[in-house]
Parts: sequence; structure tokens; C-alpha cells
Amino acid sequence: MGKAVFTSDEHLYLQVADGIEKMIAGDVLRIGDKLPSVRVLSEEYGISMGTAFQAYYHLEGKGLIESRPKSGYYVRFTHRRFPAVPQMIRHEPVPAEVTVQEMIKQVLHRITAEDMTNFALAAPAIELLPTAKLNKSVVHALRNGKDHCIGYEDTQGNPELRKQIAKLAFNWGGRIAPDEVVVTSGCMEAIGLSLRAVTVPGDTVAVESPAYFGIYQIIECLGLKVVEIPSDPETGPELASLEKAIDKLGIRAVILVPNFNNPAGSCMPDENKKRLVEIIQQHQIPLIEDDIYGELYFGRHRPKTCKYYDTQGLLIHCSSLSKSLAPGYRIGWILPGRFLDKVSALKQMYTISSPTLTQVAVAHFLSIGRYEYHLKNLRKALHTQSLRYIQGILQHFPDDTRISRPQGGFVLWVELNAAIDTYELCTEALKHHISIAPGRIFSIGSNYSNYLRIGYGSPWNEKVESGLKTLGSIIRKMVARSAIK
Amino acid sequence: MGKAVFTSDEHLYLQVADGIEKMIAGDVLRIGDKLPSVRVLSEEYGISMGTAFQAYYHLEGKGLIESRPKSGYYVRFTHRRFPAVPQMIRHEPVPAEVTVQEMIKQVLHRITAEDMTNFALAAPAIELLPTAKLNKSVVHALRNGKDHCIGYEDTQGNPELRKQIAKLAFNWGGRIAPDEVVVTSGCMEAIGLSLRAVTVPGDTVAVESPAYFGIYQIIECLGLKVVEIPSDPETGPELASLEKAIDKLGIRAVILVPNFNNPAGSCMPDENKKRLVEIIQQHQIPLIEDDIYGELYFGRHRPKTCKYYDTQGLLIHCSSLSKSLAPGYRIGWILPGRFLDKVSALKQMYTISSPTLTQVAVAHFLSIGRYEYHLKNLRKALHTQSLRYIQGILQHFPDDTRISRPQGGFVLWVELNAAIDTYELCTEALKHHISIAPGRIFSIGSNYSNYLRIGYGSPWNEKVESGLKTLGSIIRKMVARSAIK
Repeated sequence: MGKAVFTSDEHLYLQVADGIEKMIAGDVLRIGDKLPSVRVLSEEYGISMGTAFQAYYHLEGKGLIESRPKSGYYVRFTHRRFPAVPQMIRHEPVPAEVTVQEMIKQVLHRITAEDMTNFALAAPAIELLPTAKLNKSVVHALRNGKDHCIGYEDTQGNPELRKQIAKLAFNWGGRIAPDEVVVTSGCMEAIGLSLRAVTVPGDTVAVESPAYFGIYQIIECLGLKVVEIPSDPETGPELASLEKAIDKLGIRAVILVPNFNNPAGSCMPDENKKRLVEIIQQHQIPLIEDDIYGELYFGRHRPKTCKYYDTQGLLIHCSSLSKSLAPGYRIGWILPGRFLDKVSALKQMYTISSPTLTQVAVAHFLSIGRYEYHLKNLRKALHTQSLRYIQGILQHFPDDTRISRPQGGFVLWVELNAAIDTYELCTEALKHHISIAPGRIFSIGSNYSNYLRIGYGSPWNEKVESGLKTLGSIIRKMVARSAIK
Repeated sequence: MGKAVFTSDEHLYLQVADGIEKMIAGDVLRIGDKLPSVRVLSEEYGISMGTAFQAYYHLEGKGLIESRPKSGYYVRFTHRRFPAVPQMIRHEPVPAEVTVQEMIKQVLHRITAEDMTNFALAAPAIELLPTAKLNKSVVHALRNGKDHCIGYEDTQGNPELRKQIAKLAFNWGGRIAPDEVVVTSGCMEAIGLSLRAVTVPGDTVAVESPAYFGIYQIIECLGLKVVEIPSDPETGPELASLEKAIDKLGIRAVILVPNFNNPAGSCMPDENKKRLVEIIQQHQIPLIEDDIYGELYFGRHRPKTCKYYDTQGLLIHCSSLSKSLAPGYRIGWILPGRFLDKVSALKQMYTISSPTLTQVAVAHFLSIGRYEYHLKNLRKALHTQSLRYIQGILQHFPDDTRISRPQGGFVLWVELNAAIDTYELCTEALKHHISIAPGRIFSIGSNYSNYLRIGYGSPWNEKVESGLKTLGSIIRKMVARSAIK
């Protein structure tokens, strides 16, 4: 290992750790290889012993290396051992009436029960959230908010909160004025209001496949039809398919999760985002972008949004703090572009305004820099958890299992042997107090019947590992049974 | 004045005051009559001097008597001097497409501006609300709520809050289980979800006329048609007209404010409520009852609800705490009867759940009896304010003005000379920093063009009186101008 030149203000230990991680990924260091001692590492890199130790500790947290008592550190896992990613399912885009799935109800039914090992949830464990600091902001709001936050808030949302949300847009290069923000009750209200603003019942909406089941539900509820666009598990929706659907099927709106799609984990490359915006501008079709996972990236930079490339106000950007700060605060927002008046009017009609207190509290929390600080920790924790869960699945599931490689967000998209019906797996797992989300709820067709979504929002522990082990053994039994048939 | 027998545990002074009020109303005591001295009153009624003083103080607060320095108390106002109530407008119920009125936008535009004398608002002044006590409940919730209220709440609402809401139903004789409650983001979300649960776009809904403009807006927004049922300013909707409309026009749902309708102030007598429920049960048409003002009664008893008479689960009861406790907390609810599953599913789809913190805080506030205590004070304040405002209008507006006589709620419905267009009055008044709600926004026809709604949620003071005086002089000028034409 040669000496490295450290270029940025980033924590030294992270740079050292990244260097080692790259060597593991590049097969320079292989599984079982012994790593230099902490002392040698500190000398080689010209860093303190403490920093060297921190770097190893970090890699150990990610499950990449392990310490063996009285022996030192060894490589435990390489990215080359990552399983194959799930395959894209191709199908002809056909408009269809969505039907609400009884399945979703069953999956959600006991989702918050305490005795569950919950892989069905796509949300952070409460212990990863800055509860105490947020409480302080609530007390601050009670003391300092206008009328102690008891009165109606502005329909578009608390002005200070809108300012903070506008500032968050800097992170992806957005230049948004506070007046261009509409605060909502979480991201689902944002998506619902956006869809209502740009469609009328009977219209057809294009959705990537797989997609979050809540999006199908609301589309059905609004009397809209849906066209599913095949989506690559790594790069997102196939733009050629989208264009074909637009030409053929009279699409009135497109709705996508460009960054860390739920469930596939895909992240559209910048050039795809740019091209997508060109397509929707060419056809003057509004694009609703759900960016709820955008801040939860594992790489060095926040991915851009489609909104960034929009020059015509056709982009309706939706997001929230439910996945990153406080699910129960129900704070989301819309940057509605040219549909601002329509969206504001709908917000006023449906709920008059969002609650004042939580808005003022969160505005304070953001304004003192607490959110950025918290996000740094949360990203690190989620990245580590994603790697741990992948390793766990790899260890306990059959060898032909394929797993997505998300670079952000909360979920793994897992493809099993084609003989497995994951809804059956889900039913069986519930008997063992384990919940998963079966693949079929992420599409309106009968696609993804051998897929499942595993949320890794909860820190890795024995209960989690034991849950994956149990799932693995159920799957093996199901495979064996199917072989007999 | 003869000795009275006091029968209940109610405050003595109130009973004495009520007795005097009745004598004023019955013309036994007339305007200008001198009342017995405090000493004489205490002897006549066998009460303490302090109680006698309190009784006069109470009547003075209501504007019924006045104290003249060094002289004693005199009758100042009698109920016989109440102006005539506004007239019912009769029209043939015809279904029509609602159009959203630009007018509403103008009225709402500057509704919270600080420099306004705001008669357009139908809400309590913040100073009438128990801010400090509610803050304590928020802090209690932060400390004691599960996960400090940062996590998702149950879709149907916080269980303890639902229990408290079920208990509130006792007040009108309701027997509701906590599981039959769905918590919403204020009453408008309650009404929106209810309408969605029982209609599809294109359906026709019956509404009383006049009605709150927000109801017309949401009906339009959902692609529904509306039939207006003529409504008496004192007893509410004409049931014969409703029956006719049901027979002729294929009504799919009825939506009403049976208690203290906004803007008319009407309160349906019990026998009308009972008959109404018979009608809707006979035709199996869901009735959405907006009872948001039900707890704000001025009489001795809370009026019943239509839900009380329902035996078939056809009643969808909507209410909230926005008008009585904390507008900015956005806490409302639905008792959806047989439509519980549908309503819960819609709630989950549109917003997943309501914010946790405000629900837990309000549940605590209600559970310790604070809400009932607060309501007693609020009712008294509003009753006093209603009388004061009526007297002010009587004094400053032309003699042919008619005013409603609400027995609860926040608003007066005022009918002016037929030559006056109150939208013009509204525009003119805004130049004087006074806001009113013009009659036309409470109907989809061109009805009520010479009506206006005056909110009396703010305590009586010089600014209020001066506002009414200015309005009066604008009206007089408009009348004079119309006479010249």
C-alpha cells in the first residue's frame, strides 16, 4: 500500500477506508487476506493510529473485513461476491384498469406489530432518527412560533419551512424560490395532489415497473388507467418503451422514482434523466418525480433530479421527510412548476393547510443545520446495513438468488428461483412472525411472482439474521417441494 | 321580582341572570328601565351581594344592561329589538355543474393579514383558545408518547384519541366504539374522504342552500353535480324539497350542517333530524353530516346529531377541533358507519396517516378534562360576542337590515336592502381594510347577492365596532346611489 494524497476536508479515516474498499473490490485484496496491522497502516498512510483504527472499524461495520482475536484484520467479503442483480421483466405496455390488491392489505395488516421481524417496511428504524434533537425543535416552536402554533398555517405551507425546503434543492442544483413550494402531508398527499392537478378520470398515466404499490392504489382511486414501462434494476425505466407508449397510448402524465426506486433500487443515470425530460418536453406531458429517497445516497454525491433538467415547468417534484427524519410528522412537499396555482388550490380545498406545529418545528430543525448533520449519519448507517443484509441473504438463501445493489434508500429487490411464489412465502413467513413484501404487489400484472422486497431500515442484529435464516429455510423447502411436483 | 327556587347545581348568578334576561325578553323590563340595586337584588333572591353583582356583570357582558355611573343598572337592549331574520330563498332544485368562484379567492386572499378587521373569518380568535394548557399536553406527548411521536401513527388514528372522540359522542347520546372512528386532517379532509367513499364522478349530491363554499369547491373538484335544497334560516333544509329532489333527480348523497349551519346559523329541530334520517333510510342514500359547530351551542343542551337517529349506518358524521380548540392542529374525524372500511382505505391511500404528535397531545388534553372546561368558557364568550355584534349591526346598519339569530357557532347571516350587491360591498370594504364574506359565495346560483356573512369569533372591541360603523356607512352610500339610478 503506497502513501496516498488526501485531497478534501472529508474525514481522513473514510478516505483510507475507501482506498482499502477499492482494493477489495478490484481483487487486489482477496477474501481471507490478512490486512496490515493498525500500526503499519498508520505508518504507510502517514495517519495517526486512531485514524487507522477508525478506518478498519468502519470497514468492519460494513461487513467487508473482520478482526480475528490476537491475529488482526482479514478480508471477509468482496464486491465480486455480490450476487447477480435481478432481471428486468419485459412486457408489452398495455393500458389496464388497476385493481386494488387484497394482498397489500394483508402485508400491511400487522406491519407495526412489535413481535414481528419486519422486512416489509421501507422506512428507517426509529433508533436511527434524531428524536431528542427534534423534540427540542418542537419545544422551540411552541415557545417562539406565532400564536404558539395553534392557528391556521398558510395553505402553501409555513414560510420558513418553504425557505428551508428551497435550500434543500441546492443539493441537486435546483434554484427554487420559497413561493414555488407547496407543503403537503407526506409524499403520498404530494403525489395525489400532483396527479389530480394534471389528469382527469379516464386518463392514462405511465408508471415504471416495478413501482411502489401506493402509486398504483392512488391511480386507481382517481379513476385513472396505468401503463407499465419496463424498468432496468440498475438504470431505471426504458426510455424507448416510454416513447413508444407515449406515441401509441395517449399518456397524460408520467410518474417515476428516478433516484433509488422502491422496490428495485435503480437510479437513473444523469443522461437518462436529461433524455427523459427532453421526451416529456417534446410531448408536453407533465412528469411527476417522486424523489423521496434522493437524499439517502451512499455515494459521494447526491444524484441529480429530473427537475434539474426541466426548463419548461413540466416537472412536478415531490418529496418528504418521512423516510429521512420523522415519518409521523407527515411533512412532504411539491415543487409544482407551472402547475403551482392548481396544486395550491387543491391543497386548500382538501385540507385547508397542513398542521402548523410540526412545520414550524421542522423548519427550525433544518435552519440550525441539524438535518444535514443527521443525514450524514443516516446515510452511513443505511449503507452499512444494506451491505450486511446482502451478505446475510447471500449466506442464508439458495445460490440462485439475485439481489439488487442499491446505491441509496431502504430496500433490496430479491429475485428467487422461478418456481417460488413469494406471496406464498409471505404467508408462510407471517406464521414465523416475519414480514416481507411479495413482488406481485409492485405491479398490476402477475409479474414478479418470484420476487420479494426486503427492507433494511433496521440495524443489523441477531433477530434480523435469524429472520433471514428462517426465510432461507422456508425458501429451500418450497424449492424442494416444487421439484417433487 | 319574587324569590326564585334554584333547582340545579348551575352557578347561582347564571340562574338569576337568566331570570332577568327572560323578563327583558318578555317585555316585563323595558329599555331604559332601572334595575334594582345590587343590595335589593341580593335580598329579593336570597343571594349574596357578590352573586347579585356577578349576575349584573354577566348581563352587562351580553350587552343587555348597562351601568350608569352613580346611578345603577338600566336595561339597554331587548330581544324584541332583534331585527327580523333573513328570508329563505326559494328556487327549483336543478342539478348544475359547480364552477369554482374567483370571488372566494379574493375573499380568502388577505384573510390572515394583520391590518385587517376580519369579519370574513368563521373561526375563534386565538385569544379564546387554551394555548398554554395545550402546549403542556404537547410537551407531555413528546415525553410520554411512543417513540416520542416520531413514528407513523395508525391509519385510523391514535387509539387514545379515538377513545376520547368516542367519548365526545356521549354528549349527543352517541354510542360509538373507538374502532368506529377515523381521524382526519381537519373536517375538510373528513368531508372529502366521505364524499369519495359514497360517490363516483358524475353523481349528484344534495346540499342545503346557503352552504359553506368549501363544500361546493370539493364537490366540483370530485367531478360531482350539486342540487341545492332551500333552507330556512332557523330550522334548516326543507325536507319536502329534499324528498322531491330525491324522487326526481337521482341524488347519490346528501351533505348538510344540521347544527348551526355556516352561514345561515340554522339548527334543525330534533323532529326534522329524525324525519331526515327516515327519508335517507327509506331511499338508502348516505347522509354526510358536518357537525363541526355542534359543541358550540349557546343554549342549555348540546343539540342532537342526525347520527343519533340512524339505525342503519347510513350516517357519515364528520367533525373537528379546528373551530373549538386548535385550527392549526388539523384534527378532525369521521364516524363513517357502514362505510368504515372504504373510508379507512382511502385515508391510507391519500395520506397514510395523520401526524402523530398533535394527535397524542390532543388525546392527552381531552383525557384530563381540559377540553370540556375550555368549551364552557368558549361557549359563553361566543354567545356574548354574538349578541354584541348583533347590537352593533343594528346600531350602524340601515333599518331594513335582517340578521340571523344563531344559537351556536361563529357567524351572522345578514340580509341587506335588495339593491345592494355585497360583492361590491366586499371590494369596497377591503379598501378600508375590512373583510366580509359576500353572500354569493354560499351558493352556486346568483342567489344571496344582497347577503353577507359576519364572523363574530373575535371579542368585541373598538376596532370591531369601528369596522361595523364603516361597513354601515358604505352600505348607506350604496343604497343612496342605487336610489338615484
